[in-house]
Amino acid sequence: MEANFAKNLTGSLERDFDPSYLARCAQLAMVLEVSASPKPGNVDRDHDYPDTTFEHFLTSAIGTYPILEEAARSHSGVGALIHASARESLRWQRGGNTHFGAFVLLIPLLMAAGSSRPVSEIVEETTAEDAAEFYRAFSVADVYVDAVPDIDLRDAESIDKILKEDIRLFDLMKLSVDHDLIADEWVNGFTRTFRCADLIMEKAEKMSINDAIVCTFLQMLAETPDTFIQTKFGRRKSIEVSNHTSRIIAGNRDLNPIKPRVHEFDRELIREKVNPGSTADIIIGGLFVALVLGLRV
Amino acid sequence: MEANFAKNLTGSLERDFDPSYLARCAQLAMVLEVSASPKPGNVDRDHDYPDTTFEHFLTSAIGTYPILEEAARSHSGVGALIHASARESLRWQRGGNTHFGAFVLLIPLLMAAGSSRPVSEIVEETTAEDAAEFYRAFSVADVYVDAVPDIDLRDAESIDKILKEDIRLFDLMKLSVDHDLIADEWVNGFTRTFRCADLIMEKAEKMSINDAIVCTFLQMLAETPDTFIQTKFGRRKSIEVSNHTSRIIAGNRDLNPIKPRVHEFDRELIREKVNPGSTADIIIGGLFVALVLGLRV
Repeated sequence: MEANFAKNLTGSLERDFDPSYLARCAQLAMVLEVSASPKPGNVDRDHDYPDTTFEHFLTSAIGTYPILEEAARSHSGVGALIHASARESLRWQRGGNTHFGAFVLLIPLLMAAGSSRPVSEIVEETTAEDAAEFYRAFSVADVYVDAVPDIDLRDAESIDKILKEDIRLFDLMKLSVDHDLIADEWVNGFTRTFRCADLIMEKAEKMSINDAIVCTFLQMLAETPDTFIQTKFGRRKSIEVSNHTSRIIAGNRDLNPIKPRVHEFDRELIREKVNPGSTADIIIGGLFVALVLGLRV
Repeated sequence: MEANFAKNLTGSLERDFDPSYLARCAQLAMVLEVSASPKPGNVDRDHDYPDTTFEHFLTSAIGTYPILEEAARSHSGVGALIHASARESLRWQRGGNTHFGAFVLLIPLLMAAGSSRPVSEIVEETTAEDAAEFYRAFSVADVYVDAVPDIDLRDAESIDKILKEDIRLFDLMKLSVDHDLIADEWVNGFTRTFRCADLIMEKAEKMSINDAIVCTFLQMLAETPDTFIQTKFGRRKSIEVSNHTSRIIAGNRDLNPIKPRVHEFDRELIREKVNPGSTADIIIGGLFVALVLGLRV
């Protein structure tokens, strides 16, 4: 599907396809994702974390509009746009990092949709300046990540090294591919994001938009261990969470029969502060693609 | 406070005060209002109506961004902007009329904030063309309203009459002042909207943003019978709802002690399809003013 992204976009829409339209699709993707409930372990309409609430996520999604619109007009500058979106998010709300991973997916997707180019081309063309800006964004957003080998994300000298050795942002993502789902998307053509869009659109034909998002979230989490969990709690825990999710789904295609068990698992993960944040980011990317392709609420 | 709106705005903000900023404040006001729960009788994060869901409201708030931004740049054209926002809302979501009353408040407020002029001046300067556009917006939004005496809102000939007799939109609002809270705001300097902003800001110092909105909603509903209820169920029912709300609050300044009774009242009103929609619109107006004046999530 990825190869046809631009073609599908322009072919299937009834309406004008402008930067503002795309920015609103990105806002709505973030708002619908955080609203979808129950999503085990994550902030949703019924669950806050102590310092980061549902309202912080809503506000971040809305506050970043101008950067999202700018991305949809841009042909380069991925790193600077990620940096700008992280800054703007924090200017609007006091809950800390809410959407960093989502921005890393959404910015190149917005650029691709706005310029009718494949997203893989956008990320492959990133430069060392993009990588430097990405590192600057880390310190702004205070993101919890595994260090890329040999490059300490907290160390300002890393930026000098990146620029001197001409390490592109795409190269950095290649170094992180094994322990970061978002980096994996960058390197492997946003495969999960597009698959996620397909799943949501398919399910939304048969159930409410909330349930379509939750069912897709569960399915994606069952299929692939969440790397945000892995970074915080180790590989083993992330696999456990995926296996547990598989057992809960147990072949069900509908949310209702499994809802009590999903709620129970949600409470358990929230108590342990285990949040599948990378899977949520993929859902946001998938929702964005689905909305651009014509999903209607 | 209204007289100082423009002064307060430019004086109290740390950041640039541009049309995009104002449009995002308007989006966020709509999103925070519909999220706030439990709000007796209205759609919120935990309650849908059969044809109009929480997600329809979120989508409407996000989809109307360009019209909100245009309003913040405009010095005239209130009617056309209300018409455009109603159309754009329906282009994005399939839940019918979600925010018509809110747009009628937000559009002049955005124009006032964007041009540093008092909102009362904006509404007093409206023309017969604004009134005609307002009537066109009604048929688009399929809004449930009391007819203004002698002018049937469903009748296309009304528009001819408005234009021929040069009836301004402000004049129409004067005719509706007794049976429409929104018209009352227009005619009486948006007094309740500004009071609502004060209440929300004051309460948000002491409790969560959700609880601050819910407590303000209850207080406003207790003070003034909701005219949306009045239009659908009669004056008596709207007074009953306000009296019941007063008894629930019973001097409490916090939400927690009264939450069970609020939930019970919510279930009752939803069962009867009694929704205090005008009060919700005032809350949106008040949240917009509060956000512009510096309320932070």
